[in-house]
Amino acid sequence: MSSSQIIQRKIVLASRPIGAPTADNFRLTETPLPALAEGQLLLRTLYLSLDPYMRGRMSDAPSYAAPVAVGEVMVGGTVSKVVTSQHPDFKAGDLVLGMSGWQDHAVSDGSGLTRLGALEQPSLALGVLGMPGFTAYMGLLDIGQPKAGETVVVAAASGAVGSVVGQIAKLQGCRVVGIAGGAEKCRYVVDQLGFDACIDHRAADFAAQLGAACAQGIDVYFENVGGAVFDAVLPLLNVGARVPVCGLIANYNDTALPPGPDRLGLLARTLLTRRIKMQGFIIFDDYGHRYGEFFQQMSQWLKEGKIRFREDMVEGLDNAPQAFIGLLQGKNFGKLVVRIAND
Amino acid sequence: MSSSQIIQRKIVLASRPIGAPTADNFRLTETPLPALAEGQLLLRTLYLSLDPYMRGRMSDAPSYAAPVAVGEVMVGGTVSKVVTSQHPDFKAGDLVLGMSGWQDHAVSDGSGLTRLGALEQPSLALGVLGMPGFTAYMGLLDIGQPKAGETVVVAAASGAVGSVVGQIAKLQGCRVVGIAGGAEKCRYVVDQLGFDACIDHRAADFAAQLGAACAQGIDVYFENVGGAVFDAVLPLLNVGARVPVCGLIANYNDTALPPGPDRLGLLARTLLTRRIKMQGFIIFDDYGHRYGEFFQQMSQWLKEGKIRFREDMVEGLDNAPQAFIGLLQGKNFGKLVVRIAND
Repeated sequence: MSSSQIIQRKIVLASRPIGAPTADNFRLTETPLPALAEGQLLLRTLYLSLDPYMRGRMSDAPSYAAPVAVGEVMVGGTVSKVVTSQHPDFKAGDLVLGMSGWQDHAVSDGSGLTRLGALEQPSLALGVLGMPGFTAYMGLLDIGQPKAGETVVVAAASGAVGSVVGQIAKLQGCRVVGIAGGAEKCRYVVDQLGFDACIDHRAADFAAQLGAACAQGIDVYFENVGGAVFDAVLPLLNVGARVPVCGLIANYNDTALPPGPDRLGLLARTLLTRRIKMQGFIIFDDYGHRYGEFFQQMSQWLKEGKIRFREDMVEGLDNAPQAFIGLLQGKNFGKLVVRIAND
Repeated sequence: MSSSQIIQRKIVLASRPIGAPTADNFRLTETPLPALAEGQLLLRTLYLSLDPYMRGRMSDAPSYAAPVAVGEVMVGGTVSKVVTSQHPDFKAGDLVLGMSGWQDHAVSDGSGLTRLGALEQPSLALGVLGMPGFTAYMGLLDIGQPKAGETVVVAAASGAVGSVVGQIAKLQGCRVVGIAGGAEKCRYVVDQLGFDACIDHRAADFAAQLGAACAQGIDVYFENVGGAVFDAVLPLLNVGARVPVCGLIANYNDTALPPGPDRLGLLARTLLTRRIKMQGFIIFDDYGHRYGEFFQQMSQWLKEGKIRFREDMVEGLDNAPQAFIGLLQGKNFGKLVVRIAND
């Protein structure tokens, strides 16, 4: 089958969101694929990862990566199967991890593709064995440096990153307190993931509950939400605390700075007087060279049943926009993945 | 001479300042010294160090150290001479570094005292060879980790800490931009200390001048002032920048948070998107065990003429309050030290 006979379906950025994204910001388009040139290969997307960072790419505010252009396909990590190949390093049937984005097929020159070995569950390469798991691993261990007996707090605790952060912290002998939205997620975090406690951030007395659950203060706060959760965490941070910053999902839809007073100086003062380290990181930029080490360790933990995970699988490319909009509202439960094709 | 015959003169905290300290917050008192007990020694203060951190000790807001109680002698680092000793480890005539505070004599049990060897200029143990120099050394090298060719920015560049930060950064092969108050200090920083540039923070176009002097952005910002200087630095911080936080003198007199908008989330977002590390430290708490390493290296640099320093010597204990009030206004020029006695 020549690639030129395939109609490629993709979801492009139709317009930049103001505040929370809506369905209008996305558009499904269909175009025939061009024929493969020498050195190219055709990929069929099996799984598309949906992650909070994509909200940043929809805006043209300065960020760590160039924005998606209006009319361009939305970015995203993918697990794909090679359909046909004119590339010496890939053959039909190979499974690869890449960044095809929100589309069912992609033509690639092979750059940026990682061949996946025999994985029982290939979608895990987008979750616990992929970017979110790697983010949790390096952010917690390299920046957070938790020690046995310390208190580690992580928000979005049932999510792709937070769930792994907390479980690794438990393996280090820490007391682990999760934060999640709603009783069901909190139960899952404690009962299934083994956290010591989990606080519902929707509770009216959330800050008081968090304080009670962290009677010894907080030594490591893994920051992936910001906003009101960080406000509750800040007064609990211990002398010498470490705050790896991997995301700020609570602020992604903000269109303006919140009203005062201005607490920028208060944050700096807290870092000073409590000798706190706060450090942002972008996983592949900062730690790409250590992915192999992570993959080996995490595979081992999975095999031993020491790390559990949960996928929230959405069926079909057409449902990606709604699923993504829900992700920013905390509606997913587990790592959000879109199944684009079965094989 | 028995110690009981000596009238001890000391400056105590008379009241807690609201905003900037005034002369009324200090009071000179005179009391006869008690006789020495076994294991004690009597110290005569030669030099008293005045440093911005003392402002924090005058307040009872939560901080990294307990406040000075009202009526208690003000804290401060001192170089003293042993007058008489009933302590086996010290003898009359020994020079010691300690924390006698703002007073001309002190009775000590020897704890916390460091014997000073033969120093040509003993007051340097309060400056370039003491706490400020040590702060500059560890904050810059251990947290800032400057690499040759990078741009390092330091405020209060003619001061006790900033002057050393910039000179060490030059020794590392960095481009160094200082910030200071007034043309005279800026000239000194460039002409005498060898910084590549120095910007007057009082200039109306300060932020624009700083941007022009940091055409390649800022890789290390050594934070010792906060306030408007940090506001100008923040947009210039490069991806991967490091921000050691050793002081926030601009905010020490604040009685309330400044008006909005609230930029706490903006700071967190900047740390995230530019992968910045911001880390507070308290020099002896975090690095006390490495003082020997610092002292050896700095002594070597001084001997080789690689580090220059400037003292702002004030004569007499009575003048300490006004000198300290001036320090918080940037009126000193170089390391502020009070000479209490000549020998």
